[in-house]
Amino acid sequence: MIRIIPLTGIPEVRADDDLAGLLGDAVERAGGLEEGDVLVVAQKVVSKAEGRVEESDDVLEVILREARSVRRRRGELVIAETEHGFVCASAGVDRSNAPEEGWVVLLPRDPDASAARIREALASRFGVAPTVIVSDSFGRAWRQGTTDVAIGVAGMQPLLDLRGTKDGRGRTLESTVIAVADELAAAAELVLGKAERVPAALIRGYSVPAGDGSARELVMPPERDLFT
Amino acid sequence: MIRIIPLTGIPEVRADDDLAGLLGDAVERAGGLEEGDVLVVAQKVVSKAEGRVEESDDVLEVILREARSVRRRRGELVIAETEHGFVCASAGVDRSNAPEEGWVVLLPRDPDASAARIREALASRFGVAPTVIVSDSFGRAWRQGTTDVAIGVAGMQPLLDLRGTKDGRGRTLESTVIAVADELAAAAELVLGKAERVPAALIRGYSVPAGDGSARELVMPPERDLFT
Repeated sequence: MIRIIPLTGIPEVRADDDLAGLLGDAVERAGGLEEGDVLVVAQKVVSKAEGRVEESDDVLEVILREARSVRRRRGELVIAETEHGFVCASAGVDRSNAPEEGWVVLLPRDPDASAARIREALASRFGVAPTVIVSDSFGRAWRQGTTDVAIGVAGMQPLLDLRGTKDGRGRTLESTVIAVADELAAAAELVLGKAERVPAALIRGYSVPAGDGSARELVMPPERDLFT
Repeated sequence: MIRIIPLTGIPEVRADDDLAGLLGDAVERAGGLEEGDVLVVAQKVVSKAEGRVEESDDVLEVILREARSVRRRRGELVIAETEHGFVCASAGVDRSNAPEEGWVVLLPRDPDASAARIREALASRFGVAPTVIVSDSFGRAWRQGTTDVAIGVAGMQPLLDLRGTKDGRGRTLESTVIAVADELAAAAELVLGKAERVPAALIRGYSVPAGDGSARELVMPPERDLFT
């Protein structure tokens, strides 16, 4: 069985706040860390703690600056590739949950590094290192609504590669690679809520693919991308 | 807290098997149903129980027959729109976990109806009606790996529409619609596993958006689709 435990009581996060400390306090209130726990943290609080917010009366200018390339555009909707390689609406620039009216929140510069810092801080506090995922809500081609995905990971491989293993009938699976980091982010979103102050969740009972991967492995390489 | 409970001990499913009965037995072994439970069932067993399998030495012919339109193609990889409106690889036609070598599994003709039949059968057996989601593993544009999504639902609205509600700072959210049915499917996949015989899971502790929706609401309508 897997448990998804919301981490509550985290105050509004501001630039230079000790986010790992705030998360650790919330983990403590939830009963502490266990071996194998996955901590999913919403990008918004990571960005705020890292000062990745700015005041702007021209959001489009910020979006185009944050974008490495624009993939599609219709009116105010801009689908762009970020400097990290992620393709998402507004290059990840967001006005909701910004610190003040007229401010926007940008993606962390290096979300894997953000995850790694949180992982290390919690490891030294609790004596056990959680897997950490930084999540954000992305839209999808052809489907309505957002789902949360992983934009940063520490302490796991984000993809579970089952190629070469057997299906239930003994037939070798040909092309099954599962984006488990994205599925963990999506699972955590079910307790995060956009409008309430629950910016993180613990997932307990799931065994992540071992290794030291990067969320950039979740980005389709250009040579395999049919949708540039 | 949300719990994701794998449903185990379900035998290989064949055409005309009483799938709802097999799922009900597994639910009983897991301790029964509770009010608000969400039952996620892998498409593969739904299709098999409904006889949506066939022998074919020309998978491409089956894919093109099942497709309403082909969106992209490169070698053996065909991204197609199904008759339901879903856009996915091979129009949902799959060789892995097929009943025999040389056979393929097709999507259910009406996955919402499949979900509704399971929901009704379990409601009359347990006296409480679970939300039911039929899930399948879809690839995504721009991202590597599959995540499970909902292709059929019964007893919920698949989208959680937060437009008009407030963020943590009291600012009205402009465009937040969350594909919670897809997130529930992704969460369940974490315990399903492709190669082991765990074709279903119960999710407990999540309050679904109430209503009688259809998974077709998850399909981007053509006038909003930037990626045809």
